[in-house]
Amino acid sequence: MNNKTDLRSMEVGVVGLGLMGSSIVVSLLLAGHPVKAIAPIPEDMELAATRIREQLTHCYKSGLLKGPVHVYEARLKIAEDYRLLKNCDLVFECVIEDIEIKASVYAKIAKEIRTDAVIATNTSAISISILQQLVPHAKRFIGIHWAEPAYATRFMEITCGAETCADYAEWIFDIAHQWGKEPTLLRKDIRGFITNRLMYAVYREIFHLVDQGVATIEDADKAFRYDAGSWMTLMGIFRRMDFTGLADCTAILKTVFPTLSNTDKVPSLMQKMVDSNARGTQNLVGLYKYTAKEAKEWEDAFAMFNKDIYQLASFYPSEKNGVQFKVVPLT
Amino acid sequence: MNNKTDLRSMEVGVVGLGLMGSSIVVSLLLAGHPVKAIAPIPEDMELAATRIREQLTHCYKSGLLKGPVHVYEARLKIAEDYRLLKNCDLVFECVIEDIEIKASVYAKIAKEIRTDAVIATNTSAISISILQQLVPHAKRFIGIHWAEPAYATRFMEITCGAETCADYAEWIFDIAHQWGKEPTLLRKDIRGFITNRLMYAVYREIFHLVDQGVATIEDADKAFRYDAGSWMTLMGIFRRMDFTGLADCTAILKTVFPTLSNTDKVPSLMQKMVDSNARGTQNLVGLYKYTAKEAKEWEDAFAMFNKDIYQLASFYPSEKNGVQFKVVPLT
Repeated sequence: MNNKTDLRSMEVGVVGLGLMGSSIVVSLLLAGHPVKAIAPIPEDMELAATRIREQLTHCYKSGLLKGPVHVYEARLKIAEDYRLLKNCDLVFECVIEDIEIKASVYAKIAKEIRTDAVIATNTSAISISILQQLVPHAKRFIGIHWAEPAYATRFMEITCGAETCADYAEWIFDIAHQWGKEPTLLRKDIRGFITNRLMYAVYREIFHLVDQGVATIEDADKAFRYDAGSWMTLMGIFRRMDFTGLADCTAILKTVFPTLSNTDKVPSLMQKMVDSNARGTQNLVGLYKYTAKEAKEWEDAFAMFNKDIYQLASFYPSEKNGVQFKVVPLT
Repeated sequence: MNNKTDLRSMEVGVVGLGLMGSSIVVSLLLAGHPVKAIAPIPEDMELAATRIREQLTHCYKSGLLKGPVHVYEARLKIAEDYRLLKNCDLVFECVIEDIEIKASVYAKIAKEIRTDAVIATNTSAISISILQQLVPHAKRFIGIHWAEPAYATRFMEITCGAETCADYAEWIFDIAHQWGKEPTLLRKDIRGFITNRLMYAVYREIFHLVDQGVATIEDADKAFRYDAGSWMTLMGIFRRMDFTGLADCTAILKTVFPTLSNTDKVPSLMQKMVDSNARGTQNLVGLYKYTAKEAKEWEDAFAMFNKDIYQLASFYPSEKNGVQFKVVPLT
């Protein structure tokens, strides 16, 4: 399964055309796939085509397309009828994180697709091992978690459930490189996958420090923005250790691990937020306060930063085909 | 102490002119201070002036200077004799992480400086509360931890020891903004300060996952480079939560915290590395393998990335004077 797949002859389905589903459609169109998109919600049926055209136009302006927008649009079909999926090799489920809704969607997908097709879920909240119990062929069910917007991020988490056949995981892992991704492959299904899980370890410790009055939330944000941020995108975690020295790091681990928080409890600050219906930028009440204008500006800043960091990262060594250096030394 | 300080009339000392000390000198010169630099090692006495001139020239080419290099150099004096420090308001100790060497340096500094001057250490490994026992006026001793290179990074950790007077910490915190920093102020002295301590929580969890065969070190690096890296420098930890939703996050914390690693033990992979004298890029044997050429290329890439991310970050909201939006929305 390591041969390069001809994506132009591989039909891919996407079920659920919200923000995430739409940008996944765009990413698959960019890669060359014919895409069959199902809008389970009537509202999506109306909005999705417009949203996808806008995103393709944005990609065109950013130089991500090899031809005009209509060439890509011509490879896309959108319908409410699941029979559209009948020739798909792979179908992405991108509906909301509700297990009953997902179950009903899987039944509709399974009824129409070929028995050798693979179903993938974009969930980030529900266990793959649990979801795969809801499809007829559990071994051909897998987690493929995209980052938003799908066409402008390199990250992709591929996760096997307990019954997923490893061959399918490796097939997706190979194709993901053709989609322009730097995928990770989780062979066991764990809560939070990799990035989120590691961030939960960070949350546990920082809430503990804030609670003890050692640091403020502003301090923590500055520390991650300007200190961790100064190497994160270049090196990741382990290469950074190679760069800063392994012996010193090991000596410190020995003394620091016993002092880290081991709590199981939800941080009181988070519970207070939830109890007071603080929903962050969504309702302008969160760990920080926002005006409507500021919340919108953060949203715009995020979209723009995402594009900027994607471009910046592309100048630097990639893990894709071994590390390829493209940089020139500073003069 | 909240008035803006005239840095041109505030003499600052730097003791120890290795890589870090030199770039701290450059950063202080850029900010306008007259700088008195002490080279405790004869080798530094020879090399430091050249290195500082090279760094100033590099800053000049990068547009960081307001005038020619010689104007900045004229405000710098380098000597072996500690009497040079007699009029300094603040003296930075930047010698190696050896408590006996630091003790001897503090004795020499304390003998010459005014009794109302503040001594700061750049240590990242030794407790401020312990080091401040080695000076005559513990309340005027503080941790000021710079990131390398000091003139091209915004991060700065200000840390109080148990006996540090909070007024001095706030004075430094204010001045740090005039140095172009986004400082954090740790009111209690904890191991690893903020960033490193949070990264130790990450290490504990990821080594556990690697050990269990759930993920590889390459997976972890990709997850942090391309996923966490896509928002880290823009938002930090807490603002990211406001952006992604507080209720969902809280619900997940409740189920994930009990599954995170609580181990006190040094990861076996790290112990193996240390036992086999793996020193990362320094001796080309680490968590990854390197050729001499690759190690050099990573070093160059780091210097370049640091400059790139510094510039990119400067386009985005800063915490300095409240959040200031400078971005324009994507079209």
